[in-house]
Amino acid sequence: MLSFDFNTLRAAYAAGGLTPTALVEEILRRTAEDPNKVWIHRLPEAALRKYAASLEGKDPASLPLYGIPFAIKDNIDLAGVPTTAACPAYAFTPDTSAFVVQKLIEAGAIPVGKTNLDQFATGLNGTRSPYGACRNAFDPAYVSGGSSSGSAVAVAKGYASFSLGTDTAGSGRVPAAFNNLVGHKPSCGWLSTTGVVPACRSLDAVSIFALTAADAEAVLAVAASFDAADPYARAVEGYGFDFGRAPSFKFGVPRAAELQFFGDTESERIFRDAVARLEALGGEAVEIDLSPFLATAKLLYEGPWVAERYQAIREFFDATPEALFPVTREITASGLRFSAADTFAYLYKLKAAKRECDAVWASVDCIVTPTAPTIYTIAQMEADPIKLNSNLGYYTNFMNLLDYAATAVPGGFRKDGQPLGVTIFAPAAQDAPLLHLAAKLHGALPQATLGATGVPLAVSPAPARCVPCTTFGSPSGTFAALPSGQVRVAVCGAHLSGLPLNWQLTSRGGRLVAATQSSPDYKLYALPGGPPLRPGMVRVTSGGAAITVEVWELPAREFGSFVAGIPAPLGIGTITLADGSAVQGFVCEAAATAAAEDITTFGGWRAWLAQRSA
Amino acid sequence: MLSFDFNTLRAAYAAGGLTPTALVEEILRRTAEDPNKVWIHRLPEAALRKYAASLEGKDPASLPLYGIPFAIKDNIDLAGVPTTAACPAYAFTPDTSAFVVQKLIEAGAIPVGKTNLDQFATGLNGTRSPYGACRNAFDPAYVSGGSSSGSAVAVAKGYASFSLGTDTAGSGRVPAAFNNLVGHKPSCGWLSTTGVVPACRSLDAVSIFALTAADAEAVLAVAASFDAADPYARAVEGYGFDFGRAPSFKFGVPRAAELQFFGDTESERIFRDAVARLEALGGEAVEIDLSPFLATAKLLYEGPWVAERYQAIREFFDATPEALFPVTREITASGLRFSAADTFAYLYKLKAAKRECDAVWASVDCIVTPTAPTIYTIAQMEADPIKLNSNLGYYTNFMNLLDYAATAVPGGFRKDGQPLGVTIFAPAAQDAPLLHLAAKLHGALPQATLGATGVPLAVSPAPARCVPCTTFGSPSGTFAALPSGQVRVAVCGAHLSGLPLNWQLTSRGGRLVAATQSSPDYKLYALPGGPPLRPGMVRVTSGGAAITVEVWELPAREFGSFVAGIPAPLGIGTITLADGSAVQGFVCEAAATAAAEDITTFGGWRAWLAQRSA
Repeated sequence: MLSFDFNTLRAAYAAGGLTPTALVEEILRRTAEDPNKVWIHRLPEAALRKYAASLEGKDPASLPLYGIPFAIKDNIDLAGVPTTAACPAYAFTPDTSAFVVQKLIEAGAIPVGKTNLDQFATGLNGTRSPYGACRNAFDPAYVSGGSSSGSAVAVAKGYASFSLGTDTAGSGRVPAAFNNLVGHKPSCGWLSTTGVVPACRSLDAVSIFALTAADAEAVLAVAASFDAADPYARAVEGYGFDFGRAPSFKFGVPRAAELQFFGDTESERIFRDAVARLEALGGEAVEIDLSPFLATAKLLYEGPWVAERYQAIREFFDATPEALFPVTREITASGLRFSAADTFAYLYKLKAAKRECDAVWASVDCIVTPTAPTIYTIAQMEADPIKLNSNLGYYTNFMNLLDYAATAVPGGFRKDGQPLGVTIFAPAAQDAPLLHLAAKLHGALPQATLGATGVPLAVSPAPARCVPCTTFGSPSGTFAALPSGQVRVAVCGAHLSGLPLNWQLTSRGGRLVAATQSSPDYKLYALPGGPPLRPGMVRVTSGGAAITVEVWELPAREFGSFVAGIPAPLGIGTITLADGSAVQGFVCEAAATAAAEDITTFGGWRAWLAQRSA
Repeated sequence: MLSFDFNTLRAAYAAGGLTPTALVEEILRRTAEDPNKVWIHRLPEAALRKYAASLEGKDPASLPLYGIPFAIKDNIDLAGVPTTAACPAYAFTPDTSAFVVQKLIEAGAIPVGKTNLDQFATGLNGTRSPYGACRNAFDPAYVSGGSSSGSAVAVAKGYASFSLGTDTAGSGRVPAAFNNLVGHKPSCGWLSTTGVVPACRSLDAVSIFALTAADAEAVLAVAASFDAADPYARAVEGYGFDFGRAPSFKFGVPRAAELQFFGDTESERIFRDAVARLEALGGEAVEIDLSPFLATAKLLYEGPWVAERYQAIREFFDATPEALFPVTREITASGLRFSAADTFAYLYKLKAAKRECDAVWASVDCIVTPTAPTIYTIAQMEADPIKLNSNLGYYTNFMNLLDYAATAVPGGFRKDGQPLGVTIFAPAAQDAPLLHLAAKLHGALPQATLGATGVPLAVSPAPARCVPCTTFGSPSGTFAALPSGQVRVAVCGAHLSGLPLNWQLTSRGGRLVAATQSSPDYKLYALPGGPPLRPGMVRVTSGGAAITVEVWELPAREFGSFVAGIPAPLGIGTITLADGSAVQGFVCEAAATAAAEDITTFGGWRAWLAQRSA
């Protein structure tokens, strides 16, 4: 079976062995039956063929998602196809696609259909749909996870390369865990919600299911585009330190007291294995207290946010409450019990909780938890639909309240063959580092496979370079890759590790990237004055030497004040390193070296300092 | 009468003609009677003398607010003195002072007492107090404005140099207008609300009344200190372009259709005069549509935020509703009618409204409006207490909902002797430019006086320099002056106005500050390569000349990516200007000039370009 991962499809298109039309015919074959109740509306054959035809003749390299098929949760509009939110009486047919769907289609992606969900995105299990309980891609007796149930199963079954979900409290992550997928819950506001039926509008995020983390990142880079018409939209900002590609990083692991598996020892093993893999990847595990996060999650369940679900469909609910799925009706109505005063009281609690939780980021780059504590069969879920659903959200409910980004990563399988996974999360805007780390973590899983297709995960080495900050503020609003917002600067004197001005880097979030040498084109001078004593490094056309330098990385937003604090005759220019690459670095006005001691023969500032004090 | 403005007091302390103890005796004389109902608790004589004694023997220059007396609205804690919020049954005596009060006392300020207010800060007029209607400092028949009524009148009457109010919907601005004061409503979160009785906790700001804008700025610089214990606290950030000290700026003026004076032609004249003064100060008036701001203000009156007032005193209110002032009880109870769903619906509306309102900042630096449309007598207010109060908030209610900073500035007097004023406002963090412009606007008012003291306003020329960005992140959390967050950079080549790379400055918010020359110590070279063609400017020890440069100012946060985009052999170092001052500027590695043409004799890049194309 042709794998639908991006690399495979792109290679097939590039080689000419595949066309969008041929791909669509393959999709029609695969989706001729729907035993898992994936679809609410798969697109008609003619419509699918028309999307394919519109791509024929175009250069596959001209569009970032050329001929990539995707599924759309049926609370997100696709022009001309009904949006039901899994409530037939609520259905309407939009004239225009959701902002984010339109972006993907413009980038060459092919919509396959609208997928089943827990009605009005209320649920984490996939059974709450009048279109039938969506069945797990591995064992139809098990829940698929929800609320983005069909979107996950569509990708796991090989009906689409990726899919859009929505994730208010875990709906984009729990189904990923249960179907052996990557599920990325982006930073809130990065993916427009224009054309999306709200669940909790202040918390909703459109999410991405994919077979690999790299595929999810490629979708995110296209989809993350500021939408001025969405009041909750936020512009993409730089992600900062890329812990996902760093040789070492720190990750938080909840202490045992706050871990909950509801007796599922296989789930616990899967989590422990993932922690071990993260350590093997260079991660230093730091035990953290998850209780403030769990307390925040409780706010969502106990508090007034459920009233947003009522507000989202208020007129419809008031007029025809009987049109709702029973459990959805019960949950939605529970929002009626909260007053405005209660609401503000909980908003205050949330403000305080965020202050408390955010303190953890001083000590870790990301946190890992299980994605869901365990999995249930559809029969179990239907017998106890509120409590067991609530159990599934143990590790996911706090995420959007706290404005974090999160990636669910496949974690392997229980002995009974059911997949589970782990989630890594970090503050908003750190989507790319999370996805980079997710790629490494997924790649380190023995015998990793893609969804339920049985296709092995091909591990491709990740590029090591960060994206330069100059990709900031792309006029088109979309990105070839997400911007790091970081700059690198070579230092050669008092800013070196342990020397008097090094704090000017560390206090701005600077991190040491490399200790190396310049190309052999520089002279080094001990400048008059001080303290602190300072050298001047001057490029010369002859008689130069290689000078020991350190390369530091820091946020571009902090780099400006760093530069502004550098006194004459020093400045920031471009330094050539020993490997021939260029990097920002300290330069010195040549005129200032007339009165300075030439210390080039020492090969570096530390060596000169050492002889001086000797 | 000794004026209590900061300059006068500081000069008197410095000259030795005044001591804190002598000042306190003067305050005791002035406050022996209280015909205006300013105080709920003036401090006992012994307590006041003790504060003074604690300052004796200290160097007046050692404390930024040495011996400056201030009054405190009685919803803000002062250790050991009851906090009543103008509700005797609610009173408690705190052990510790509010965070912001403590900061001021540590800076040398002397608390004089706790001032009268509209009960629980609910009101804009000053009559809603069981301690008596606070009377206007000019004519006791008129309202003082509220809710920070006593705090305003205390300063206007010369009982204190400045005072703290709170401002949720105008309570720090309307009383300033009615008592000929500067009233600054800081950026929300800059002044801690720890130890403040909440009104609408999501919107509350502690505010400052002062005789002059410079005094208010001095208080703000001390008081604005991040309080980790306040979940709504925000750290001070750079204010950016200082339109308050720029030779030209753009200010929005509401079009006539949205101006409302309730028939007060004198109020309209005062507003028109202020607009004319702003134009005379270099401002370009830009007509703007105030209707989205007024629609936002309506959200506050119609919407669920009043439920925050109930939530703030919920247990007290539920237990003893009869303890409240009747009109306060009625307003507070009105919050009970809103549900959680209503609340979220209004939060969504506010998000959309802010997006719409914020669009105006693309075309203006600040906006001017009347502070209040008119003023009423106490008898008028008591006859129609809700509607007339609402009229007073016409121009103030939207400010905190939209996260703006605002300064109320004296605007002169109606024919009947009642003062009115105007308010200038701008986005959060632009407090300093607002206060700088307020100082100029106040100074331009003919025969300006200080409060109700009759003392003429002494106009001192404002310093022209911006505060360098390196004052960012002061470890103590307080500031000698608020940081601009701007850097200045001298450009000499392709970044000059109109040349190919100038967009790299303008797209980052850069503004041209000066067209000038360097000191006569540079050689200019036309570097090989391009386009764009680029010069290299190199400091030399002899044979140099003055080179034409432009000095641009841009946010430090954007400067880093600017620097990172500069290719070798150029860089950013320090340039000496013709006047001997130093500024960041383009430097060039000397080694690169070996193959370059020396164009120093042209005196600048444009002159060389001109001859080249000639």
